Formats: sequence, structure tokens, C-alpha cells
Amino acid sequence: MSNNNSNFDFNVSIDLSGQRFKVVYSITGSEIEAHAKASAVCVEQTIEFPDELVPGGDIRNHILGKIESFTFLTPDRWEAAISYPIEISAFELTQLVNVMFGNFSLKPGVRVERLELPDSILKIFKGPRFGIQGLRELLGVPERPLFCTALKPLGLSAKILAELAYRFALGGVDMVKDDHGLTDQPFASFQERVQRCVEAIERANRETGNKCLYITNITAPAHQIPEKALFAKKNGAGGLMAAPGLIGLDTMRLLAEDDGIALPIISHPAFQGSFVINLENGVSHYTLFGQLPRLAGADGVIFPNYGGRFPFSRNDCRQVVRGATVPMQHIKPIFSMPGGGMSLERIPEMLQTYGKDVIFLIGGALHKIGPDLVENCRTFMKALQ
Amino acid sequence: MSNNNSNFDFNVSIDLSGQRFKVVYSITGSEIEAHAKASAVCVEQTIEFPDELVPGGDIRNHILGKIESFTFLTPDRWEAAISYPIEISAFELTQLVNVMFGNFSLKPGVRVERLELPDSILKIFKGPRFGIQGLRELLGVPERPLFCTALKPLGLSAKILAELAYRFALGGVDMVKDDHGLTDQPFASFQERVQRCVEAIERANRETGNKCLYITNITAPAHQIPEKALFAKKNGAGGLMAAPGLIGLDTMRLLAEDDGIALPIISHPAFQGSFVINLENGVSHYTLFGQLPRLAGADGVIFPNYGGRFPFSRNDCRQVVRGATVPMQHIKPIFSMPGGGMSLERIPEMLQTYGKDVIFLIGGALHKIGPDLVENCRTFMKALQ
Repeated sequence: MSNNNSNFDFNVSIDLSGQRFKVVYSITGSEIEAHAKASAVCVEQTIEFPDELVPGGDIRNHILGKIESFTFLTPDRWEAAISYPIEISAFELTQLVNVMFGNFSLKPGVRVERLELPDSILKIFKGPRFGIQGLRELLGVPERPLFCTALKPLGLSAKILAELAYRFALGGVDMVKDDHGLTDQPFASFQERVQRCVEAIERANRETGNKCLYITNITAPAHQIPEKALFAKKNGAGGLMAAPGLIGLDTMRLLAEDDGIALPIISHPAFQGSFVINLENGVSHYTLFGQLPRLAGADGVIFPNYGGRFPFSRNDCRQVVRGATVPMQHIKPIFSMPGGGMSLERIPEMLQTYGKDVIFLIGGALHKIGPDLVENCRTFMKALQ
Repeated sequence: MSNNNSNFDFNVSIDLSGQRFKVVYSITGSEIEAHAKASAVCVEQTIEFPDELVPGGDIRNHILGKIESFTFLTPDRWEAAISYPIEISAFELTQLVNVMFGNFSLKPGVRVERLELPDSILKIFKGPRFGIQGLRELLGVPERPLFCTALKPLGLSAKILAELAYRFALGGVDMVKDDHGLTDQPFASFQERVQRCVEAIERANRETGNKCLYITNITAPAHQIPEKALFAKKNGAGGLMAAPGLIGLDTMRLLAEDDGIALPIISHPAFQGSFVINLENGVSHYTLFGQLPRLAGADGVIFPNYGGRFPFSRNDCRQVVRGATVPMQHIKPIFSMPGGGMSLERIPEMLQTYGKDVIFLIGGALHKIGPDLVENCRTFMKALQ
């Protein structure tokens, strides 16, 4: 390549390890169109620079993305594995996501299917502190599927939410979480809610002998997250829920890695849906709800169950489970937490889909099966055994 | 509504001001389908609870979203303005975005078109510190369109990036920004890059008498952002660029409101594209690139120009400008920064589209028009006068 359009020399030498990570994309179009898009990804996600100005040195040969494989899926869908030098990730989760799909999120026809990360990238992440095994140990439940419910509807006071929490815990629920819309509203402030709900659940635990955890929603303004997490920890909360779509994935990582907090982290999908709603742009269920929250240290990931009021298919849900549990060196496998569309009748089918390492998130359905909330919880719990 | 399915009393009294904010959505489907989706938004974005269990008290009457208007757009597209009580936003940007589109991002057929916020919500945000007027004062350029370029390609050392920055500034560019892929790579570390680029641009400014600003990319791991922002400030950077899709919108707000930093903030669209790629889900250009970054304190917002390598239309771009400048009480109007697809020939058309209150982001094109980068900058600058 000639460089004669510019008197600036871009033919530089860069100190690189030679190790690369891969992002596998599905691409829409004919073979020729899809291959052209794959080439565009190689440029757009790295140098973003006119081809004719990049000479034959290290930038062209190593910084630029490389198409490692290009394979047929359907006549108008292709899969391209593109590799990037590990150094351009700067060994940061934010920049890893940026290389994966930062600018290309703005273009049609390309979707991230999965990340293939070498040890040199994985080792920068601590991953989930608890994972499936650790969370089971905290709860004292070695084998059966777990059962989580949510404090709702929005509008109840902290006091009434705590009354609900008490009944759920008395009914044997493993985890009681804030509804994701509960943050720090004047009618149910964060601090009062944490204190009252922890007290209520501890009281129920003394009666049942269980170890039900209260998971508080830590999705909050950026400057308040550390202090709220610490408040939750000091006041006995059993875990934290955060929506990476609202606070940033790396803020969740920071919470998960904080040894002063050391609580289970639950990821909520709010404001992430537009990435998975479209087959021809975005990020797969496998990566968005499986791989990425794991890298960011989530111990469980909430997503819409199939057959409920959301459009996720059974296969979409299974892809989440795969991403949440696929071997990734020291990064522990985590719980899938399908929510919505659950009923007593569907439990056998759900168990077949998810296996036993699952946390069923049962909200509204829990209120509907009978007049007594405590009994309703027990009925669901029996059906899960 | 009866409450006889549960012995729990959800008929509570809530202390609310009665003030509401509105989100205007476009909804796909027949009139009946679209109206049903609008009703679903009212529930999903607030109480997420079975209709039959919510009695006739304050939760049903005030917390639940309300369809304020429902109007025809096309036979299969409708517009619904839905109001929510200001209190459920908890007066937080994170929760405001969550109420706007948190769960519904996971469903097809509904797109956020615009926010209509009362003073009681707007007053919680400081908004941009500089805005159009303030940034013009910093640069000493009262009227003409502004000209920004980017340091690239990725792979260059801090020393070479600084050489580029010097030539750009010497050529009269108003702002030189990091390419958004430059974070803290081993071959061009953040600290060295900031120091060298600031020095280079100050040297050029002494020669030209201009006030060119170096905008450093602050998109970084969550725990490093405050210290990096402070380092940039102390070492003379002229502004900060952040990608809210990667670090979280509220983290940008925190940077913008920090009086110890007090630098212009530029918003970058990386990893936000999937929200605008699809007419039937997501967030409009007007809100995503106009209203939201303004609320979060950005002074300028980068987005793909029409007619370049991205699929944005001229109308999409004009919608960004509208959202960036529509009156919002004390929240200052901000600069649109269209990038990509620029050439000397297109400048008259661009000026017609954007007016003079625009920052043209010209990257690769600047390298292509001739062999001398300094002269190329001057040529572009002359064409902008």
C-alpha cells in the first residue's frame, strides 16, 4: 500500500504479544455482501481509517481485525470469526465491549454471537465471587432449583414491602429481591427499605431455619452506588441487584470485585433489550446475558422466560444458560434466572429446559394461585422439589 | 377491582405531588394492537403486576402509567403519550431512563420518541456546564461552524499521536479528540498521551494564537474514571470524551457536574447504536443523542453523519439537532457533532442541514485531500468560513 497521499508516516512498529482474542459475528447478506461487511468490521472496530492510507506495517498487519474464518449459516446469513490483538482491549471490560461492537452497533447486518477469549484476557477478570456453587453454599441448598420472588408493586411503602418480604421468606423462598423499579423513591426510600426488609427476612429465617437472602436493588446514580452498596452490606442485605444497561457493565464489575462488599450480584436486563430484539444487529442472548455479566462478576442473571409476556424463545433462553455456564477458565458458571410466564403447571417443562441449576423468578404468579401468600410460596416450593 | 385472590392489601395511600412527566412512544400495529401495547407499557414500566390484583387505590390511580393521548401516525403506527408520577423517577437519571424504557426494551413494537419533562424533574439536573455558548467562549469562536478531528489510527504511540495533534492544531482545527478506541493501551498509555498531546497542542496554540482544545477519551474502567478525569484536568486537557453506552449515562453526568473537573464533555455513541437501528424498538435519535446526553451534561454529542458509511438519514441527523437544542428550561442547548462522510464538496450541504452551531468531526477525509496535514486542515477551515 502506498502512503503518498500524506506526508505522515503511519508505518510504525508496535510492541505486541501476538496473542489475539476472537469475536464471532453473524452477518446478513449474500456471501459477497457479508464478506464485505466482515472486512468493514475489521476496520471499524479498530483503526477506523481510510484503507489506502494504512501502509504495510504493524498497524495493517496486527492492529486491524483479521477474518479468521467465514462460514455458511444460511444463503443470507454468514458467520465470521474476527480476531483482534489482545493489547487493543487495554485489558479493560469497557474497551473489550467497545472493540466487540462499539461502532458497529450503529450499522445494520452484524450481530455479536460470542466472545472467544484467551487466558491473557480472562485473567484480568475475577469473575463471579460466588457463582452457582458459592450461592448454593450461602443458601444451604446443595441441589434443588432455587426460587426467587420480587417485592412489588411499585408504590408500596418500605413497611409494607417488608411485610411482603416476611411472608415470602416464611413461605420458604430462597431469595427475595427488590422489583427493579424500586430505587430510592420518597415513598419507599432505599435505606428504610433495606433495614426493614433485612429485619423481616431475618425474623422469618429464625422461624424457618432457612437462609433466605434479601437482594437489594443497587441501580442508582453513579456517585451513590458505592455508599449504597456499603449501607446494604452493613445492614445485612444478602445480595445486590444491578442493571448494567443503566449503570454500566463495568460498574457492576467494580461492585462484584469489592472485597469490602463481598455480596452476590444479580444482573437485571433493564434497558438492554434493544441489543437482542433484532437478529440483524446487536448481541446474542448467549453473550449479552451469559458471557458479559459473568465477566463482570454477576452470580445470577435475570432475563425474560419464554412463554411469558416477552418474546424470548426457548432457544434464546437456552443460549443464556449456555453463555452463563460455558467453561471460561477460572470464571465461575452462574445461575440463569428466568422471570415471567411461570405457573405451577409449567414447572416440569421449565425443569426440562433449565435443569436444576436455575433460579426461578416468580413474581405476579405467586399472588394468583391462592389467597394466602405464605401458602402460595410453599405450594411453589413443593412443586420444585 | 376485587382483591380476593390475595389476603394482602395493596390498596394503599401514597403521598404524591400529583405532577407527572411524559414519555411519547411510537407503537407498531393496528389501532387495537397499538392501544393494547400502550396499556402494557403503562403496567410494565411501573408496577409490573397482575391487573386483577391491583385495587382501586393510589397504585392504580396514580403510580400506573396513564395514556394521555393516542394518535394516528400511519395505519400501522400510532403515537401514545404516557405519563408517570414524577416520584417514581426517584429524581435519578438512571431510574428516569428505566421508567422510560427499562423493561420494554425487551419487547418489540414500541419506541421512545421523546421525553416531556416538567420543571420538577428538569431542576434535578445541572445539564451541560458550557453548552453551545460556553464552548464557543472557551474556543474564542463566536459564530462560525467548528471543526474537530480525531487522533488515529489505533496503534500509533503517544509520541506520534502528539505529532499528529500538533499538525492539526497548527492547521487551525478547533478541537482535537482521541479516537474513541484509544483508552489506555500499552502502546499509547493514557497518561503519556494526555501529557504529550496537551504539550503539542499548547505549542501549536502559541504559534497560531488559537485556543484549540485537546479532548481526551475518559471511557475507562469504572474505578479509574475519576482519577483519569482529574489527571486530564491537572495536565491541561481541554475536554473529556465519554461513551455513555460503555460507562453508563449517569457516570457522564457525574463527570459533567464535578466542579473539580469543570471541563467540556463530549458524548460518543459507541455501543448505543442498537437503540436506533430499528424503527420498531428502541429510542429515537432525538432522545438518545439529543435529550439524554444533554440531561447528562454533555456539551457536544457525536453521531454518524448521513451520507457516510453509517445508515443515518438526513432526517435522523436533524432529529439529533432538535433534541440537542429544543428548549428545556435551564438545560443549555448543545453542539451536534456529525462524523463521517465529510468532504470539501459536501460542506455547503452540511451547513444547510446543520446551520452554524455545529461541530464537524472530520477524520479520515482530512488525510486524503493532499499530502500536507497542516494544509489540509487549513483548506477545510477555509471552506467552513
